[in-house]
Amino acid sequence: MKNSFGTSVTLTLFGESHGPMLGAVLDGLAPGLELDEGFIARQLGLRRPAGRISTARREADEFQIVSGLFEGHTTGTPLTILIPNADARSRDYAATRALPRPGHADYTAYMKYHGFEDYRGGGHFSGRVTAALVAAGAVCIQALRTRGIWIGTHVARCAGIADRDFGADWKADFALLENEAFAVLDPAAGEAMRTAIEAAARDGDSVGGVLETAVLGLPAGVGEPWFDTLEGLLAHGLFSIPAVKGVEFGAGFGLSELRGSAANDAFFMDGDTVRTRTNHNGGINGGISNGMPLLYRCAVKPTPSIYKTQQTVDMLRGTDAELSLRGRHDPAIVHRARVVVDSVSALVLCDALALRYGTDWLARQEAEGRR
Amino acid sequence: MKNSFGTSVTLTLFGESHGPMLGAVLDGLAPGLELDEGFIARQLGLRRPAGRISTARREADEFQIVSGLFEGHTTGTPLTILIPNADARSRDYAATRALPRPGHADYTAYMKYHGFEDYRGGGHFSGRVTAALVAAGAVCIQALRTRGIWIGTHVARCAGIADRDFGADWKADFALLENEAFAVLDPAAGEAMRTAIEAAARDGDSVGGVLETAVLGLPAGVGEPWFDTLEGLLAHGLFSIPAVKGVEFGAGFGLSELRGSAANDAFFMDGDTVRTRTNHNGGINGGISNGMPLLYRCAVKPTPSIYKTQQTVDMLRGTDAELSLRGRHDPAIVHRARVVVDSVSALVLCDALALRYGTDWLARQEAEGRR
Amino acid sequence: MKNSFGTSVTLTLFGESHGPMLGAVLDGLAPGLELDEGFIARQLGLRRPAGRISTARREADEFQIVSGLFEGHTTGTPLTILIPNADARSRDYAATRALPRPGHADYTAYMKYHGFEDYRGGGHFSGRVTAALVAAGAVCIQALRTRGIWIGTHVARCAGIADRDFGADWKADFALLENEAFAVLDPAAGEAMRTAIEAAARDGDSVGGVLETAVLGLPAGVGEPWFDTLEGLLAHGLFSIPAVKGVEFGAGFGLSELRGSAANDAFFMDGDTVRTRTNHNGGINGGISNGMPLLYRCAVKPTPSIYKTQQTVDMLRGTDAELSLRGRHDPAIVHRARVVVDSVSALVLCDALALRYGTDWLARQEAEGRR
Amino acid sequence: MKNSFGTSVTLTLFGESHGPMLGAVLDGLAPGLELDEGFIARQLGLRRPAGRISTARREADEFQIVSGLFEGHTTGTPLTILIPNADARSRDYAATRALPRPGHADYTAYMKYHGFEDYRGGGHFSGRVTAALVAAGAVCIQALRTRGIWIGTHVARCAGIADRDFGADWKADFALLENEAFAVLDPAAGEAMRTAIEAAARDGDSVGGVLETAVLGLPAGVGEPWFDTLEGLLAHGLFSIPAVKGVEFGAGFGLSELRGSAANDAFFMDGDTVRTRTNHNGGINGGISNGMPLLYRCAVKPTPSIYKTQQTVDMLRGTDAELSLRGRHDPAIVHRARVVVDSVSALVLCDALALRYGTDWLARQEAEGRR
Repeated sequence: MKNSFGTSVTLTLFGESHGPMLGAVLDGLAPGLELDEGFIARQLGLRRPAGRISTARREADEFQIVSGLFEGHTTGTPLTILIPNADARSRDYAATRALPRPGHADYTAYMKYHGFEDYRGGGHFSGRVTAALVAAGAVCIQALRTRGIWIGTHVARCAGIADRDFGADWKADFALLENEAFAVLDPAAGEAMRTAIEAAARDGDSVGGVLETAVLGLPAGVGEPWFDTLEGLLAHGLFSIPAVKGVEFGAGFGLSELRGSAANDAFFMDGDTVRTRTNHNGGINGGISNGMPLLYRCAVKPTPSIYKTQQTVDMLRGTDAELSLRGRHDPAIVHRARVVVDSVSALVLCDALALRYGTDWLARQEAEGRR
Repeated sequence: MKNSFGTSVTLTLFGESHGPMLGAVLDGLAPGLELDEGFIARQLGLRRPAGRISTARREADEFQIVSGLFEGHTTGTPLTILIPNADARSRDYAATRALPRPGHADYTAYMKYHGFEDYRGGGHFSGRVTAALVAAGAVCIQALRTRGIWIGTHVARCAGIADRDFGADWKADFALLENEAFAVLDPAAGEAMRTAIEAAARDGDSVGGVLETAVLGLPAGVGEPWFDTLEGLLAHGLFSIPAVKGVEFGAGFGLSELRGSAANDAFFMDGDTVRTRTNHNGGINGGISNGMPLLYRCAVKPTPSIYKTQQTVDMLRGTDAELSLRGRHDPAIVHRARVVVDSVSALVLCDALALRYGTDWLARQEAEGRR
Repeated sequence: MKNSFGTSVTLTLFGESHGPMLGAVLDGLAPGLELDEGFIARQLGLRRPAGRISTARREADEFQIVSGLFEGHTTGTPLTILIPNADARSRDYAATRALPRPGHADYTAYMKYHGFEDYRGGGHFSGRVTAALVAAGAVCIQALRTRGIWIGTHVARCAGIADRDFGADWKADFALLENEAFAVLDPAAGEAMRTAIEAAARDGDSVGGVLETAVLGLPAGVGEPWFDTLEGLLAHGLFSIPAVKGVEFGAGFGLSELRGSAANDAFFMDGDTVRTRTNHNGGINGGISNGMPLLYRCAVKPTPSIYKTQQTVDMLRGTDAELSLRGRHDPAIVHRARVVVDSVSALVLCDALALRYGTDWLARQEAEGRR
Repeated sequence: MKNSFGTSVTLTLFGESHGPMLGAVLDGLAPGLELDEGFIARQLGLRRPAGRISTARREADEFQIVSGLFEGHTTGTPLTILIPNADARSRDYAATRALPRPGHADYTAYMKYHGFEDYRGGGHFSGRVTAALVAAGAVCIQALRTRGIWIGTHVARCAGIADRDFGADWKADFALLENEAFAVLDPAAGEAMRTAIEAAARDGDSVGGVLETAVLGLPAGVGEPWFDTLEGLLAHGLFSIPAVKGVEFGAGFGLSELRGSAANDAFFMDGDTVRTRTNHNGGINGGISNGMPLLYRCAVKPTPSIYKTQQTVDMLRGTDAELSLRGRHDPAIVHRARVVVDSVSALVLCDALALRYGTDWLARQEAEGRR
């Protein structure tokens, strides 16, 4: 499916950067989930550009839930969230219509849609569309939490600077990240990263980074042996996030450098529970969750919109050309992409769990007392 | 879908390592493709364990096409390939039934299937199932070649040793790989890798590696902006391959270390064609092919089956236990996984192309003169 | 998929009868289709209750296209249509919350959603949701017409009164139906039907009917042999329409009474074209279009909302109960369902054609001259 | 999906009438279902041509389960059933290759597959493929029975002769049908039908009929409000059955003749259970099961293969032509299609139930005691 994802729980995205609004339709979620709209607003806030290291574009991100919510609970029918586009300055883009921006989707959109695409501000390819994804993801995250499943993502690397790894006390680490616009576990690393981002911004340039995600509380036995492996499903979703160019699970590419005796995760009994002493496989064996935390990383490329003059082509004239971007652009988006990773992860897991345990599972406790 | 993949061109896999046979049903492929069964046999040969660095299990991999082929051409109806299991020694596995092998799917299969899974030799999770995938992939590869689309994969890293990169002359490089069981571009690197694999084997251990794939000839404009991005579709398929724990496109994780000015691929006119001077984005912008070669890498973990004694649990007794594997195991599978990567890639691309251009596109020339 | 339909061209519906709005997301449609919004408005007008034989609820059906349309043409990205709910009187429904209406979805919605459903006016089950379906269908109908494919539906039976069959001059018959709120081929039959509907209304009762649809211009060779037969796809969509309880193709149930020699449609050459002398199979053999007009009928049950006192249960008390409906209800919806049948048909055919011929096919001519 | 059906439980069909074998891959079924292979054989026996009113082709229908079954129980991984084609006389068909049979898929297959289709005996379109469907359906039927869900179908009409309706004692009626090759509730009606079939056979002609199905024990709350309504899902599957040209639920087309006061099914309390006094809606309201028996009918057209001379075209010469069929053909298939209807119904319901209640639900009791 083109702009939809999922089998039992599905998400459909629509909207363009400079159209009247963006939106998401989330279908198949259990009825009876009590929804905290404030949490959706906070998640949108974490995605929103803010402060000295972000685009000057201001997005209020007011959202409206127009279906699927009744008396504060999900109904089980499609839940639709609309997000109006308030501050879209179309005039910034028209001048460079014929000049595809390097690293962006301008050229490929043209080749796919034959010039009929809404090119303004990236149109349907804009990172702005992730606002709708984050709003829907915030619903999924709430659904998972009712079942004791928690997702946390931090900026593990940015501009060559590394954050510390997740520690043994996951809950404490997740609490650190919960409402932090620049989510790192080590504040000093975060400060160094922001300084590096500012340096890039002064150069009219941008930086990328790596996001690391952990999922706690996922039951063992979720995922499929072929094709719909948990890794395949998560990666499918994560590569939708603009700028993600790599996904690895557990030790990932590093695992390929180890010998088997070092790579294998030994099992042991922890009381009645089977656990592994290491987690090089990121909580997934044979495509299926093993009850250990999921652990994976996304490589986020540097923002392609930079102020330095770049080489491109003039699509109308068929000649080489130079491009100098104006407008408002982020020198880094890795920290803003964090909440998008959480959202996609939550969507994928809600879907896998609903398939495994049935459509009511994610809100079962709440659903049982009704009427 | 659980053991199926694809939207317009779909593949369904079935079979267990120690059952009577494996199989694949490939549906939706264009009618009228003239099939070279010898090519299927050669691809199976490249996957088959052979020589001093592979398991002693001998698989003849005789295959039979039982539907969808008529008078040497695909019919357009489901094409089914069966591969009998000849040399399966079930007695090797029964003794360790209760002891899940670290790094394998034994434990997760048990948690998913409640002990009803066919556990012998990994059952449906066995790498042996990739034989069916390779046979079907060989059909897809032939379909792509009729349209001038070529896929090549080499062992880019193994046991810490690097092969050289693809050169400017893709065709020459692809020719080097075509029938090579241990596919490297630099023979000296290949020899060093094999030596390292043998060293690991002598230690009762195993090694992993990285596979790098290039796709030439793919038209620009294939893929979708959200969810069904070309990266997402390929990664979804590639993570199905047992032991793949990371996938990156273009410069991938390395891209996250660059600044935007270095990461962006500048456009230029090459005659009438728009091309990019570098290819850090791996031929994909905004999820859609840009006409440059696709380039991506898969991290392959070391074979989990090793002869060293490992820590595990006894599922029947609920106690810690030790496991000493016997049987026949590969000290490395990265070179054998190469042809599986090609096969998955071909399947994903056939599907994306059929969706874009219609079901007949992949064999259109041949189909036109019939009757 | 729950509230979505289609593989290459997909439609997702959302909204409840008494929520702020309804909507439809239409994805996968070819870029470059020039859209006539007036046609959408006219189609909505045909669905809208009007005149002496309809509910007194007045729906302006103002709609807004909020994505996927740029400079008057489809972009190829998701096209979203919103329809606000203006005149919803929720107070009519609250009193009878615990009393499921016979023939309605009140009881089954409760069993599925555990009482969390928005029960007001049928909520997401309301026929009102078909307004979104009709708006999206109007886009699909326009796409088909650019390829010379036309759909026409008439009220073949209502309250025991039969309209005449389609005649040899399809175009003339389709022109009769195009903007007719009560679509019949024989005006006298239509007048008799309306009189019968009024009689039922005076009794506080309702009537049903049969809709007959013809599709002209569909190429031969569309559909699949198993499961995604053209009949199966169309029926799947058509049974979504509230009140449709039967679907038959060609002579349908009547065909089961014939002998083979009478039922088979003899082929003959009509110039260079293969045609059949009769069309008992409704233009479909083996699940695939044969180039003759598609012909099918939908049975529409009488509106379940009637003013006569009915037996039901009190869900809160667990006792038998009586129900006397108030509010505004149609004594017949068969004539209003006509345009819904056209819409579903258009959606199904756009999807089947896009799968067969590629995503650009439906607007190819227009797309070619762009930029 | 082309030759696949289902979302959580999926079936893929392959094979041609005159190829080496047919087959079915059933994926997603719960692990731990104890399988009675004798039941599969008996179901195949009910589909098999036999006796004086069937084709002389003899099909042993020996089947082999080659995956997904281990120690007598389903494993939860794809269950594959192969059925060899033993008695296929290809020479009967070659002579009339260029002459498409009226009422068959010969012509449409040619238009879809451009002449590359295996035309022998209908190839992939052959009713013979339903043997694979019946074998897989027999597995689904067993799964449903572990949950107390039973399906029964009888020949409600044939050659103008009506069987009696289902009575109040469903179990007794289902027992009558269980192993009956010509499934009627009234033996005298059955005898009259067979006599009429013989009369048609003597004329070189064929007859059709109507199959009526009841499903008992289905919980309320299964199905979706739009698109994946229970009616839509069942009809989608049922129209796959060759020769089915109409599907109606409950009173179906007859319902369209009633007034609402007669059509609505009044609710009442039957102890603690909500039931309806009549069942004109066939156990489905708003697309969702209401706990009453499902009731639906399929119109089966007369076998298109008849011995009378028919008008057709010569595809090679582009001229009109006459066709006189030889070979072995059924004067009626309605009684043989009965078990195909049961099989499709079981597949659709297993899928809907697995989606609703999770993948393990259909064999949960059995699965719990394992290991």
